[in-house]
Amino acid sequence: MIHITRRERFSAAHKLAKDEWSDEQNMEVFGKCSNPNWHGHNYILWVTVKGEPQPSTGFVVDLSALGDVIKEKVIAKLDHKNINLDVDFMKGQMSSTENIAIAIWNQIEKPVAELGAQLHSVKLQETENNYVEYFGN
Amino acid sequence: MIHITRRERFSAAHKLAKDEWSDEQNMEVFGKCSNPNWHGHNYILWVTVKGEPQPSTGFVVDLSALGDVIKEKVIAKLDHKNINLDVDFMKGQMSSTENIAIAIWNQIEKPVAELGAQLHSVKLQETENNYVEYFGN
Amino acid sequence: MIHITRRERFSAAHKLAKDEWSDEQNMEVFGKCSNPNWHGHNYILWVTVKGEPQPSTGFVVDLSALGDVIKEKVIAKLDHKNINLDVDFMKGQMSSTENIAIAIWNQIEKPVAELGAQLHSVKLQETENNYVEYFGN
Amino acid sequence: MIHITRRERFSAAHKLAKDEWSDEQNMEVFGKCSNPNWHGHNYILWVTVKGEPQPSTGFVVDLSALGDVIKEKVIAKLDHKNINLDVDFMKGQMSSTENIAIAIWNQIEKPVAELGAQLHSVKLQETENNYVEYFGN
Amino acid sequence: MIHITRRERFSAAHKLAKDEWSDEQNMEVFGKCSNPNWHGHNYILWVTVKGEPQPSTGFVVDLSALGDVIKEKVIAKLDHKNINLDVDFMKGQMSSTENIAIAIWNQIEKPVAELGAQLHSVKLQETENNYVEYFGN
Amino acid sequence: MIHITRRERFSAAHKLAKDEWSDEQNMEVFGKCSNPNWHGHNYILWVTVKGEPQPSTGFVVDLSALGDVIKEKVIAKLDHKNINLDVDFMKGQMSSTENIAIAIWNQIEKPVAELGAQLHSVKLQETENNYVEYFGN
Repeated sequence: MIHITRRERFSAAHKLAKDEWSDEQNMEVFGKCSNPNWHGHNYILWVTVKGEPQPSTGFVVDLSALGDVIKEKVIAKLDHKNINLDVDFMKGQMSSTENIAIAIWNQIEKPVAELGAQLHSVKLQETENNYVEYFGN
Repeated sequence: MIHITRRERFSAAHKLAKDEWSDEQNMEVFGKCSNPNWHGHNYILWVTVKGEPQPSTGFVVDLSALGDVIKEKVIAKLDHKNINLDVDFMKGQMSSTENIAIAIWNQIEKPVAELGAQLHSVKLQETENNYVEYFGN
Repeated sequence: MIHITRRERFSAAHKLAKDEWSDEQNMEVFGKCSNPNWHGHNYILWVTVKGEPQPSTGFVVDLSALGDVIKEKVIAKLDHKNINLDVDFMKGQMSSTENIAIAIWNQIEKPVAELGAQLHSVKLQETENNYVEYFGN
Repeated sequence: MIHITRRERFSAAHKLAKDEWSDEQNMEVFGKCSNPNWHGHNYILWVTVKGEPQPSTGFVVDLSALGDVIKEKVIAKLDHKNINLDVDFMKGQMSSTENIAIAIWNQIEKPVAELGAQLHSVKLQETENNYVEYFGN
Repeated sequence: MIHITRRERFSAAHKLAKDEWSDEQNMEVFGKCSNPNWHGHNYILWVTVKGEPQPSTGFVVDLSALGDVIKEKVIAKLDHKNINLDVDFMKGQMSSTENIAIAIWNQIEKPVAELGAQLHSVKLQETENNYVEYFGN
Repeated sequence: MIHITRRERFSAAHKLAKDEWSDEQNMEVFGKCSNPNWHGHNYILWVTVKGEPQPSTGFVVDLSALGDVIKEKVIAKLDHKNINLDVDFMKGQMSSTENIAIAIWNQIEKPVAELGAQLHSVKLQETENNYVEYFGN
């Protein structure tokens, strides 16, 4: 069993705020992340899958096929978008890094399995000082 | 004469689009950067100043005073903001990386001179694949 | 369960040497790290905690509260200090990266629990070519 | 138990292609990685070992001894070499990142044990967008 | 006048050796870079152009058009290739980083001018410890 | 004319303080950098030289000879040392990053000329947020 990781990137806007709260309440709980006019990040995403290398190719999985899955299911929906407004799989959720990572897992778990590998982790970095990792449960 | 550089960072939303154009026209000229609901970046800013080291301290300039100038005049106005909507010194301009860098120069040129140094360059990185540098003319 | 990581940094002096040994003995065992007049590093610290995202915020833990714990319990005591001489929680121990990481774990395990999360790992980088990770046992 | 990691680097040429296939077949399966005249990478290698810090030194293992093992068993054989043609422990295998990482594990598992530590993982990065990790089984 | 820089990357094989010399002579002058069976690198390329931002767009140059020029004239010819054998514009030259950078300048100077900007510099990194910069004369 | 840069690193202790001042005075002017028991950094050094590539080799200068000069004249004297106490060429000077960079220039200007190249700049990074550059006058 070996792990292989693909890095992808996207740039997106978001805010952390509850619609039913006032700006002051949101500021108190979410700080500057609640700015009503949005802010944004260069997110970095690492998707790790695992499996046995195939004897004929030496690959666990065709990396460019894995890249295509991530681009189609994740990057095309998040890159140069507003995570709160534009992204179907984030509707109705707070756009915390934790929630985005879990949603990305749910987007790609099945397509990764169809490539013959097993999704191991989704790591998502919001700024150079913080990132999350999700292992599926 | 020696150059000294201070790095600071801010995360902000923006879009590249002209109000008087349709979404289609904006998409044609500005591509995905024109997404109507905004997108955003982790910007990295390097401010370089120059001067002679003072014999008593060995410093061209007090770096924490320089940091305070950048934080007050630039970071506090851009970090976790919408560059198009929230930033007084960007009003009426396209929020291209070029224009932001020039505006940052104009914000800090005088305060840097008051610290006894001369502003040499403003370097602003939008993504890991592109950045601009402005030298004041 | 999701993991979230906060990065912090500190710059400190130290040496690896036993007081009861001669400089020659220390040089033999610890090499250039035993330089009697000290040397130093820009340490990089990653603290990883785990838990369930709270439905109302989407957060495992309030990252700025986590940052405050790390700053108060760790960074304020290590940054711009001599690890062998100035740091109460390193007294009587070799200032190896391993020992510093374990000591940092002991400093923050309880305060992290009080934030409602569980400490998962402490990663400490001494130079770009070496780092340690401690998982609490 | 604590983990300690040493980073080393090597620059090597390779290609992904089966001798018994035509260039066209190889291109179909391996894409541009099958270029007949080779291509190459700056590989980055992280070797992680684990153990208890020794009370007298605070070390899990003497890092420079670990570095010497990696340099002798791995770097000297791969750096500025052709992985397909010049490297004894890669003979007869596809030079996928997966296979190189497993082969590196096999090269150093015993020498690391002789240093008094246990090999935990071999991480090998081929480009800034992909890397593999092997844990020994 | 403002400078804007685009980063691109390519992975290639090469060697530094003169055909008319023996392997021993090449080893004496070029060291391990002369390995007869090639070695390779992940090269990183920064292309810097300069000009005035256009009032309507805020751009010195359309960055994706600049990216297309670099991809067509440089990356497509170097990526996953052997610089000594496969690259028309390097024929008959030593594949030192200096010579590659100068050749890249010559490849893109005119196409950059046709985009309405002026080529300022080509920076090419061979490993994390060395890079060259060429300014056109 | 082309520029070529070599990166080297050293880890050292220092403090910014005047012997003739009290700890309180030093703290007022130099802040936490005046900690009486020292602190330290992982310094990163980039040395840039310039010249014409030689037709026979394609090199401006033999990079490993340049590396040897930097290691002998700079790194061997600064790495794992106390800059204030152990380094002959820093005696009697404040160990500001500015002064260290200028002193490094003076150490290597002549030996670089003897290699047949011209020293262009010394860049020295103290932390990821600040660095200096010296061009020789």
